[in-house]
Amino acid sequence: MEYLLRVDVASKRVVYEPVPEVYQPLGGRILTARILLDEVKPTCEPLGKHNKLIFATGLLAGTPVSSSGRLSIGAKSPLTKGIKESNSGGTLAARLAQMSIKALIIEGLPENNSLSILVVEPQGSKLIPSDTYKEMGVYAFADSMQERFPDASVACIGPAGERLYNAAGVAITDKDGCPSRYCGRGGLGAVMGAKGLKGIVIPQKGKSRVINEEDFKVATKRFSQTLKDAPSTKAYKELGTAAMLERVNSLCGLPTRNFSQGVFEKADDINARALVDKILERGGEGKQSHACMPGCLIQCSNVYVDENGKTMVAPLEYESIVLLGSNLGIGDLDDIARLNWHCNDIGVDTIEMGAALGVAMEANLASFGDAKAALDLLEKVREGTPLGRVLGNGSGITGEVFGVINVPVVKNQGMPGYDPRAIKGMGVTYLTTAMGADHTAGPTARAEVDHASAKDQADLSLKMQKLIAMFDCTGLCLFCIGAVAPHPDLVLELINARFGWDKDLEWLNNMYQEMMQIEYEFNSRAGFTKFDNRFNEAFTERELPELSTVFDVPDDEIDRICDSIKHG
Amino acid sequence: MEYLLRVDVASKRVVYEPVPEVYQPLGGRILTARILLDEVKPTCEPLGKHNKLIFATGLLAGTPVSSSGRLSIGAKSPLTKGIKESNSGGTLAARLAQMSIKALIIEGLPENNSLSILVVEPQGSKLIPSDTYKEMGVYAFADSMQERFPDASVACIGPAGERLYNAAGVAITDKDGCPSRYCGRGGLGAVMGAKGLKGIVIPQKGKSRVINEEDFKVATKRFSQTLKDAPSTKAYKELGTAAMLERVNSLCGLPTRNFSQGVFEKADDINARALVDKILERGGEGKQSHACMPGCLIQCSNVYVDENGKTMVAPLEYESIVLLGSNLGIGDLDDIARLNWHCNDIGVDTIEMGAALGVAMEANLASFGDAKAALDLLEKVREGTPLGRVLGNGSGITGEVFGVINVPVVKNQGMPGYDPRAIKGMGVTYLTTAMGADHTAGPTARAEVDHASAKDQADLSLKMQKLIAMFDCTGLCLFCIGAVAPHPDLVLELINARFGWDKDLEWLNNMYQEMMQIEYEFNSRAGFTKFDNRFNEAFTERELPELSTVFDVPDDEIDRICDSIKHG
Repeated sequence: MEYLLRVDVASKRVVYEPVPEVYQPLGGRILTARILLDEVKPTCEPLGKHNKLIFATGLLAGTPVSSSGRLSIGAKSPLTKGIKESNSGGTLAARLAQMSIKALIIEGLPENNSLSILVVEPQGSKLIPSDTYKEMGVYAFADSMQERFPDASVACIGPAGERLYNAAGVAITDKDGCPSRYCGRGGLGAVMGAKGLKGIVIPQKGKSRVINEEDFKVATKRFSQTLKDAPSTKAYKELGTAAMLERVNSLCGLPTRNFSQGVFEKADDINARALVDKILERGGEGKQSHACMPGCLIQCSNVYVDENGKTMVAPLEYESIVLLGSNLGIGDLDDIARLNWHCNDIGVDTIEMGAALGVAMEANLASFGDAKAALDLLEKVREGTPLGRVLGNGSGITGEVFGVINVPVVKNQGMPGYDPRAIKGMGVTYLTTAMGADHTAGPTARAEVDHASAKDQADLSLKMQKLIAMFDCTGLCLFCIGAVAPHPDLVLELINARFGWDKDLEWLNNMYQEMMQIEYEFNSRAGFTKFDNRFNEAFTERELPELSTVFDVPDDEIDRICDSIKHG
Repeated sequence: MEYLLRVDVASKRVVYEPVPEVYQPLGGRILTARILLDEVKPTCEPLGKHNKLIFATGLLAGTPVSSSGRLSIGAKSPLTKGIKESNSGGTLAARLAQMSIKALIIEGLPENNSLSILVVEPQGSKLIPSDTYKEMGVYAFADSMQERFPDASVACIGPAGERLYNAAGVAITDKDGCPSRYCGRGGLGAVMGAKGLKGIVIPQKGKSRVINEEDFKVATKRFSQTLKDAPSTKAYKELGTAAMLERVNSLCGLPTRNFSQGVFEKADDINARALVDKILERGGEGKQSHACMPGCLIQCSNVYVDENGKTMVAPLEYESIVLLGSNLGIGDLDDIARLNWHCNDIGVDTIEMGAALGVAMEANLASFGDAKAALDLLEKVREGTPLGRVLGNGSGITGEVFGVINVPVVKNQGMPGYDPRAIKGMGVTYLTTAMGADHTAGPTARAEVDHASAKDQADLSLKMQKLIAMFDCTGLCLFCIGAVAPHPDLVLELINARFGWDKDLEWLNNMYQEMMQIEYEFNSRAGFTKFDNRFNEAFTERELPELSTVFDVPDDEIDRICDSIKHG
């Protein structure tokens, strides 16, 4: 039997509820969305008592299926003020599923701003006080928990979440106990902070129940083989997400110096080749390839090391390299790795933080290219000085406070590593997903199209959004797409075998379409309109110098995509 | 002939345009609204090149009619992101009208962030460089201008406007040259700062043209007599706006300690009686009563002095006393006067600044009641430190940055001196005016109703909004209402005589209704919906302790008023 684990931080009550029938076929992103729409008033104050923080497992979580352990966290976002789902790898989703918990619902507000930790064990779960861990960095906190509970899976916030920063994320430990997998976007860490929840600890492993074990084994084998055979898997393993950098730079869409340029003159120093060469050359703890979840065959992750072979940060990924690198005019991987580690430890999203630092540099709070100054700014974010708090609340607020109007946001969320003037399909995704400027909601940069042309971008974005949506419901990593998208029946077989169901592809299609509708419905009830689906003048009127173009996909194309999502 | 004076700060071109026929019957607030709807894209970036700053005169400006010289300034607000009109007394509107300028339109963005001053003279107008006045306080700047142009009327911004603070206002000199009349609300000073316009100077007086001079004299005499005979005039002259304090405190609606209470235990130390007693007892430069415009018969203003009879601030008014006093737990008029002077000199709205300081105190940046700490915070606002910039951008941003959810705002604008849970008609006004939480858009506190009851408040607010709207079109001060509202024909006679028209009351009614519709239309095109016409949880769920009540006028009542305004 699977449960919803409901935790009221006000009364400290922890209740196991059987999963309602309507939630049973749902997983991951759609489960967070459904619970939010059912239980949270869309107009509520995101940091107030009515918001809830949902941790949902995917439909295959906890099983040995490769790449199936994405954790979805959802809430009303303090950053966008709309619905938010942010997912990541790591071990928590599998552990939750192994404890028979399909989703975790954190609700209420704690008395006296007290901090607590939720410990989830087979014999039951409880909140324990954790005031002694106040303002502790993410790495130290995870270490402490793993000392106390060896081999525990940990999700936690850093000082950023405790300070209710809108850039605060939730960190999840990977298979080696390193707390650097991030549900980073949308300020979900601030919602966790408002709930006074420093961390969630699951000390033990278990086994997720599978109904038709034989069928499941067969299906798993087929799935694995397909994944192994795919060229995309090989590419991820070899170069990781950083492989995207060279491509985006060549498309003139690499955010550089607060999105004022689309080509970075030091791109070759920070691209995937440079990254892998450094790791291989330096040896030691370095790993060119690494899995964040046990059993993952893709292993897109890495361990980046210093000159002595000691770990600097793991992983060092595309979005972080861009937002903390080219976007700040910084062209040195060691500098970027240091900034990344500090973001992780403070508990902030590298994308939002990088976007905020870019705006801060445009406001002359530091010079573009000055990594030392960027680190000093991060130190203020950690300390919670007024400047640190501004930056920690994201690029939109940083622009407001310092009077900078070139601010890279949609729905107040900082843009990831694709300039929408150069990669216009990505721009359509930023505008039309319910999530705000998002890097995974509908990535288009790999498509073989003329990215700088406004033509056909809207439909490309919609197609990608639907594909991602399907994966986000299952809990499978989106990097399976290259291998598995042509064979959705593989995914269906796994799900059917696990639960003893007889679902068809139509069910899968209906599920993700319904998910996107729910997300739109939540935002609509929160007050969002088509006016929220627009870029500001920095992207519609300021030309990207290398291409002499602005974002020019017509508004009615944007509205058409939104209508299409809304009406399924 | 009357003109629109169009100033392009990019090209430095200053052009006199004949007033288009459709604008000729318009004045004040409706003229700013009409020009904004005609010329400014409602979705534009408020501090960007597409926004325009409009200075409009009322229909009777520049004539000897008492209280006729209100200046309306309008723009898209960087604070609310909607349409904004803020009006004030002082001498500028009369002088503009005397120079045959019906309205002034400031447009474009300056090159190289250069500062300039607009000098308006009978023989023509020009922009002169003013970089030497950079960051100069409002008082020193006005003094400098008056040294250079004796007897000049001056409008200007302080450091706050130059720093693009959303709490920045525009200061106007009064009949004695003191620059303390404020078009304070909505961050219009930031729009002026974005335009690089430090000040507007009108060195000479003139004479506004009147078509039927004899009729005008007779009408003026009748108007004056009615004003003089009214009890409200006598009350304003004796106690000024501060008279409201005792009443609001007795209604338990006096914002106290960041709107956490509605009764201030030191109310008697800061009410009108205390204020007048201090002024009379201290003598010297003090004035219990004072006119901000030449010829005003109401003279609600005052000059507040220190123990040696030297001016501390002039005037000291209700909203400032509340927001910088009880709202901060400060119960000493000298402390409040000092804070008020600094706000004026920095160039920030005392309401928005007081609301922001209240939020800052709730965030423990200073203790409630600590006037010295409040002054220190204002010093940071002046200097432009990160903390100062946060505060200078208003109470909404201050709450976001410091994680405070009890933030007194509607449409992101800080609330004035009436708690909407105790004075619910005022709450309806905050929600339903296009302006955001506003102190003059539809004041209900004087009405003889049960203010804590939700009943009938919606219609009371609408009635008051219409009345105010009528006055705001004419350029007459709203403090004429007590005397003149029962006799709108008096106003009509003046207008008809001045322009040789034959307008009737229906025309006057149509004008203000059209104005409110234009404002709604602008906001609607800027993306506003009914969701913007709601209080946050601090007012709908947190009870006002003295009355154990929240704001409970039903949403459908609010929507009904909005519809009524929208459809005339």
